[in-house]
Amino acid sequence: MENIESATQKKAGIFASAWSWLKALPSSFKSKVANVAKSIKKLGQDDPRRIIHSVKVGLALTFVSLFYYARPLYDGFGVSGMWAVLTVVVIFEFTVGGTLSKSINRGFATLFAGALGFGAQHLAILSGKNGEPIVLGILVFLLAAASTFTRFFPRIKARYDYGVLIFILTFSLVAVSGYRVGVDELLVLAHQRLSTILIGGASCIIISIFVCPVWAGQDLHKLVVSNIEKLASYLEGFGGEYFQETKTEEGGDVSKKDKSFLQKYKSVLNSKTTEENLANFARWEPGHGKFRLRHPWQQYLKIGALVRQCAYQIEALNGYIDSNLQVPQEFQSKIQESCKNMSSESSKALKALASAIKTMTDPSPANPHVESSKNAVKDLKIALKAASVNDLDLQAIIPAATVALTLTEIVKCVEKISDSVTELSNLAHFKKVEATVSPEGKASQLLHRGTVNPVLDGDSNHVVITINEEADSPENENPKAPKHPAQRVPV
Amino acid sequence: MENIESATQKKAGIFASAWSWLKALPSSFKSKVANVAKSIKKLGQDDPRRIIHSVKVGLALTFVSLFYYARPLYDGFGVSGMWAVLTVVVIFEFTVGGTLSKSINRGFATLFAGALGFGAQHLAILSGKNGEPIVLGILVFLLAAASTFTRFFPRIKARYDYGVLIFILTFSLVAVSGYRVGVDELLVLAHQRLSTILIGGASCIIISIFVCPVWAGQDLHKLVVSNIEKLASYLEGFGGEYFQETKTEEGGDVSKKDKSFLQKYKSVLNSKTTEENLANFARWEPGHGKFRLRHPWQQYLKIGALVRQCAYQIEALNGYIDSNLQVPQEFQSKIQESCKNMSSESSKALKALASAIKTMTDPSPANPHVESSKNAVKDLKIALKAASVNDLDLQAIIPAATVALTLTEIVKCVEKISDSVTELSNLAHFKKVEATVSPEGKASQLLHRGTVNPVLDGDSNHVVITINEEADSPENENPKAPKHPAQRVPV
Repeated sequence: MENIESATQKKAGIFASAWSWLKALPSSFKSKVANVAKSIKKLGQDDPRRIIHSVKVGLALTFVSLFYYARPLYDGFGVSGMWAVLTVVVIFEFTVGGTLSKSINRGFATLFAGALGFGAQHLAILSGKNGEPIVLGILVFLLAAASTFTRFFPRIKARYDYGVLIFILTFSLVAVSGYRVGVDELLVLAHQRLSTILIGGASCIIISIFVCPVWAGQDLHKLVVSNIEKLASYLEGFGGEYFQETKTEEGGDVSKKDKSFLQKYKSVLNSKTTEENLANFARWEPGHGKFRLRHPWQQYLKIGALVRQCAYQIEALNGYIDSNLQVPQEFQSKIQESCKNMSSESSKALKALASAIKTMTDPSPANPHVESSKNAVKDLKIALKAASVNDLDLQAIIPAATVALTLTEIVKCVEKISDSVTELSNLAHFKKVEATVSPEGKASQLLHRGTVNPVLDGDSNHVVITINEEADSPENENPKAPKHPAQRVPV
Repeated sequence: MENIESATQKKAGIFASAWSWLKALPSSFKSKVANVAKSIKKLGQDDPRRIIHSVKVGLALTFVSLFYYARPLYDGFGVSGMWAVLTVVVIFEFTVGGTLSKSINRGFATLFAGALGFGAQHLAILSGKNGEPIVLGILVFLLAAASTFTRFFPRIKARYDYGVLIFILTFSLVAVSGYRVGVDELLVLAHQRLSTILIGGASCIIISIFVCPVWAGQDLHKLVVSNIEKLASYLEGFGGEYFQETKTEEGGDVSKKDKSFLQKYKSVLNSKTTEENLANFARWEPGHGKFRLRHPWQQYLKIGALVRQCAYQIEALNGYIDSNLQVPQEFQSKIQESCKNMSSESSKALKALASAIKTMTDPSPANPHVESSKNAVKDLKIALKAASVNDLDLQAIIPAATVALTLTEIVKCVEKISDSVTELSNLAHFKKVEATVSPEGKASQLLHRGTVNPVLDGDSNHVVITINEEADSPENENPKAPKHPAQRVPV
């Protein structure tokens, strides 16, 4: 009796476990599908332009497929219509700049290599039917090897890599096909192929520019702004984070909640490649939105490099964020104010710079914050001089001192970023904002720029300044500013 | 008379200037050519494999051109021979891993998309002659849009981007060509095309592997080693650079001469993208040289990240290298020794780690240096505690104190790097070196590994350890080590 019961229980157990396994099977499959769906959704939500881009590629491809479906078009192009499909698939990039760069590279490389290929064909024919393949082989070898080598030049790699690839491809195809097909037929083929490539390229360019365009330049602009903002939000929170913890123990919970801002800056550390790629694409783009052709994209790279420099300092700073627990209260209170000021004023300066770039207005509103952060550095020095170091445990105060010193380095960095943004504002003719300028500081500078009427007699402190709001119009352009800044800036 | 003379002089002047201009013309052209020649030479000298790679591409292209020149081959493949040329140009990458990744991607994507394309063709035929282009158009649109979207997934982007591209291309071509050509003819075309692609791919792979191969894995290995060495050489020089200048003023000249080592580490800061690309390629490569298939390349990325972390600290350190001029001699002498020790022992540890990775031997020789660098940190703390801070100018000593603290952070980093290299040595089964192990410290650890015979009776401090030199042979492999580490490591 007992045996049977246990056997039944066993059986029931097996069934139950099999059942739960079976039940788990679809649910584990379901959870996998759900995971994939979630990541698809996240990918789309992070940047909805990705979905639009996919649709655009589908559209362009379906459009060029028409060349196969419509009889009159097919009769015109025949199998060469294939090249339109190929061109669309290979050329269509996420950004307008990427698409343009590839189209232009492909177009010119095809033309140039095609012409050279015909030349090679003619040259080879001169050497007789037997010599022809040998001469062609040697020419293909030499050109392919030489062109491949040029792809190692960093400048060519960055801008013309795809062009060189297509050059090798087209030259080999033309030189080699001519051997079998005959020059006349080859000309017809070349004509067909070139026109289908043009059609493919043109539809890519048109769709990419006119249907929800993604501008590499705009992305670079936004990236640099958001990187500066990330540093600003770190520095904004840092003072509170570092100095509050010892003060208000009960506030620890609150500060631990929103510590995410302490991690965001990390993405700035490795932003170099993205910035360089975007800048490479941006130079191919026509004027768009607030950006004109030949917008000084190289200057964004300079700003980006300085921002990264600042991020390295913040990375060092971040190592000490939890190290202030044993710092003597006495010492901390001495440096606390100037440190908080350095941090918060740097943050405000960076925010002002970011917003100046964002709105493309004069970055001078950042200057007062840069100045007060520099004053905070001076305050720190005075505070340190005045501090009586008797009775202080040197080992305990060093972390706090290091934080202070790192902050002064950050202040230096921010000043450099500010200079660099000012340079950008000159190069790109940012809009001047109505400013309330203190006459002493800026008068001499402004004499060279706007329409400044110094009242020379009487009260020399009183200066009437009329800043032209349209300072970026061509008439009163700063004569010192280069016309085509992109060419002046060393790459 | 005077007039004529001046006119003659003028004329002569014009001639002279024209002549000098003419003379300068070829020389300026010459100097440009010379510049280009110089940069070509430099490019080749920096990495002679670039020249070899160019020659290899030329060879592969000339080889597949044979399919046009040789009549029996041409009769077999016809115009499809073009696809062999195309494949070679597009697929041949600098590294074996790159070439393999592209070949395999291209091969599978072509097969898969071709089959799907035929399916689409059959499906479309079901809907009648009028419905066919509409169904095909919709299918092409959906597949192109969906596939394009998958290219935004970082993992797919990193490994299968090219495959997805070729998938879209082939599917569109097959689906669309079938409409005009008819299924039977399409099958012949597809067969020809696939075999020429195979020929192109195979010749690329063979030439890339057997003619002076460039292995991405080996490059990654070397890159990580050289990055560690760069940090080591910085730290080796740092102590001398920072502390000597105030000591021996006459030695200033010498130290300024070889300051190049102070800049080399900068390239480490931005090495992330290169490392990731190489690791992506390396996973496609078969075993080569000292590396087996499924070598733990992901672990190199982990080490690389820690090395970069250390480089950020060095970047912070580098800001203070000229700031020690006003540090009071009294204070400096107190921390000098421990700072120099931290710096030099960290450097030695890094050098030992680099050489362990380079020779693929056990990294334990680095351990004593890690230990003594940690002892130097303790010494520093003691020195700071003992320092009488009376009479010290706090502001003046803070830079030196910051340097000391940053060095302790570097010591921590180096320890992490050491752990990470040890993990690599376990994953990749580095050769164990004959070690003189102190019985107390390592005995318990070694009990799990080699053939250790603890003498349990009598003197419990005396333990006989026989370390097998062939510890990395499969028989006495550490059973805990994962068999396929690459799969275990989260990507």
